[in-house]
Amino acid sequence: MTAALPSPPVPDTDAAAAAATRLASLAIPPGALGRVGDLAVWWAGVRGQTLPPPPTQVHLHVVAGDHGVTARGVSAFPSAVTPLMVGAFLDGGAAATVLARQQGVTVRTHDLAVDVGWPADTDTRLVAHKVRRSSGSIDIEDALSPAELDAALAAGRAIADESVDAGADLLVVGDMGIGNTTPSAALVAALLGLDPAAATGRGTGVDEEALQRKTGVVAAAVARGLDRHGQDARALLGALGGADLACMTGIQLQAAARRTPVLLDGVVVTAAALVAERMAPGTAAWFAAGHCSSEPAHAPALAALGLVPLLDLGMRLGEGSGALVALPLLGAAATLLAQTALLADLLGG
Amino acid sequence: MTAALPSPPVPDTDAAAAAATRLASLAIPPGALGRVGDLAVWWAGVRGQTLPPPPTQVHLHVVAGDHGVTARGVSAFPSAVTPLMVGAFLDGGAAATVLARQQGVTVRTHDLAVDVGWPADTDTRLVAHKVRRSSGSIDIEDALSPAELDAALAAGRAIADESVDAGADLLVVGDMGIGNTTPSAALVAALLGLDPAAATGRGTGVDEEALQRKTGVVAAAVARGLDRHGQDARALLGALGGADLACMTGIQLQAAARRTPVLLDGVVVTAAALVAERMAPGTAAWFAAGHCSSEPAHAPALAALGLVPLLDLGMRLGEGSGALVALPLLGAAATLLAQTALLADLLGG
Repeated sequence: MTAALPSPPVPDTDAAAAAATRLASLAIPPGALGRVGDLAVWWAGVRGQTLPPPPTQVHLHVVAGDHGVTARGVSAFPSAVTPLMVGAFLDGGAAATVLARQQGVTVRTHDLAVDVGWPADTDTRLVAHKVRRSSGSIDIEDALSPAELDAALAAGRAIADESVDAGADLLVVGDMGIGNTTPSAALVAALLGLDPAAATGRGTGVDEEALQRKTGVVAAAVARGLDRHGQDARALLGALGGADLACMTGIQLQAAARRTPVLLDGVVVTAAALVAERMAPGTAAWFAAGHCSSEPAHAPALAALGLVPLLDLGMRLGEGSGALVALPLLGAAATLLAQTALLADLLGG
Repeated sequence: MTAALPSPPVPDTDAAAAAATRLASLAIPPGALGRVGDLAVWWAGVRGQTLPPPPTQVHLHVVAGDHGVTARGVSAFPSAVTPLMVGAFLDGGAAATVLARQQGVTVRTHDLAVDVGWPADTDTRLVAHKVRRSSGSIDIEDALSPAELDAALAAGRAIADESVDAGADLLVVGDMGIGNTTPSAALVAALLGLDPAAATGRGTGVDEEALQRKTGVVAAAVARGLDRHGQDARALLGALGGADLACMTGIQLQAAARRTPVLLDGVVVTAAALVAERMAPGTAAWFAAGHCSSEPAHAPALAALGLVPLLDLGMRLGEGSGALVALPLLGAAATLLAQTALLADLLGG
């Protein structure tokens, strides 16, 4: 059993309280902004200012990796698609990169465990944190060795540090990897005690037969993980996750440690976030939930983190796309709090 | 019984079909964009292009009016707040104007029935379409005379024409007027056969006693309207609505007639939209729903229009604010459809 990490700093409660007071003073009926108002208060707390500007330096980290379970037929696509999609991230043709470009978001793509050997002229930043080719098939073996788990978590922390040192005011983590909803479902099911069938979804869109196979893989993995590790979240991450998921956990842990907020995306990123919260309780205070996907493990994972998603649009793409579709809401919330007239000024004017 | 208006033109089905084909060809799993994909297809149809750019010339028309029912104690605020808020629209301090400024949306404010006499130096555009001071108290009298109803509808059509002629590619209608959720609830209840208690909400935030009074006013108005006019939507608009709501109906009717899409806001605008759809069936094809507010008549009105709201954030401010918070989703949808790589290119690349 690994000792729990120290909890991260808490967001600035004074700034959040001052923001809530201002929200209640605006020339709008009390509560009329609904969760947009809550979002503005959260943003004030995590930015440590009563009226912080909208996020202007958003970094999207796309973390890519393959998974041994793909050989079990849990996905509609083969692992060979993962490096093709990594190429689309580098070329700017992937959906999340399209949204990032539209919104001025900086994108970094990291190969943690893609099952490919890249050509010699590949950008070294892509593979700087590579841990292995594909993670283990979690129904029969650990996803990662202890040393690999350490390396992937450390990679995530280094990635977050680099962003924070460069001035990022908000991090978004995206996933790319065929098969990655299987370890995500397994982690959420193991950590929350869910029935594997209730946590397992169709991912990229598998048919009923593949869904049955996938559910069987998740059930075997959960049983294997709980048997060996109980509720040790870090150990479960190594057993049921993968190098990509462990890197995401590391990014999110370090973001919170560095007082930097994270806008969560889909089920993969949220499974990694749930591990982060279990490893260092209080981490989730630095998170907001961009959306709820149609993957069944996503909603319970968000609820366990105490997060209410901003959007619920039936998206299930990953990559950070749901978070980036939600991102303008954060700018709207911050701007409304800062610029809407005060009721007292209206009545006195 | 007024004869039905001719139906508006239908959106471009060829453009929508071509957009749907492209959506299915993107380098994403089928359906993975969820309702963001549906939104992109709708946008293609209403813009008449397979890959239309995001909206760039959005016009917000805030339509203001007071309501005789306010004297019955149906609101937490007196009618005197309406002209103050109109001032906040003109000054740019109202929440919707803050969002509009942030997003480059053009705002026009129209006094249709504010219970105030403006100073002589008031911008003549504000009052160009004024019909009367306050609309009638709908529990005991018609909101508008037949001539006033004609004038308010014509004002809305003129407002829409001006925007379309100026090159607007999307219209948003906002409401401002103390008491305006009461006629909205009455119209929705009358047109959909809802129990007045199920259609009546707390508006700006009235207490239980005021909610009971408000429900009684809605019930009396619905009974009075249905008794005189049955399901004649235009006549019900004159009996149960107001000059502001009738103007909103006119804007939305003319937008559709001019092949110009409308992003709907809250319950007041949606009640007017429901009247428009009943007056000219097919009008709703030009609408998308920005959000669902916490007012109980909003969700059934949207459902009756066949619309699924993009956001559900517990907002209940009106002014166009919910539509403007949702507006960036439309830009994201259009950009994703136009710029995401095609699967065939990815696999062949």
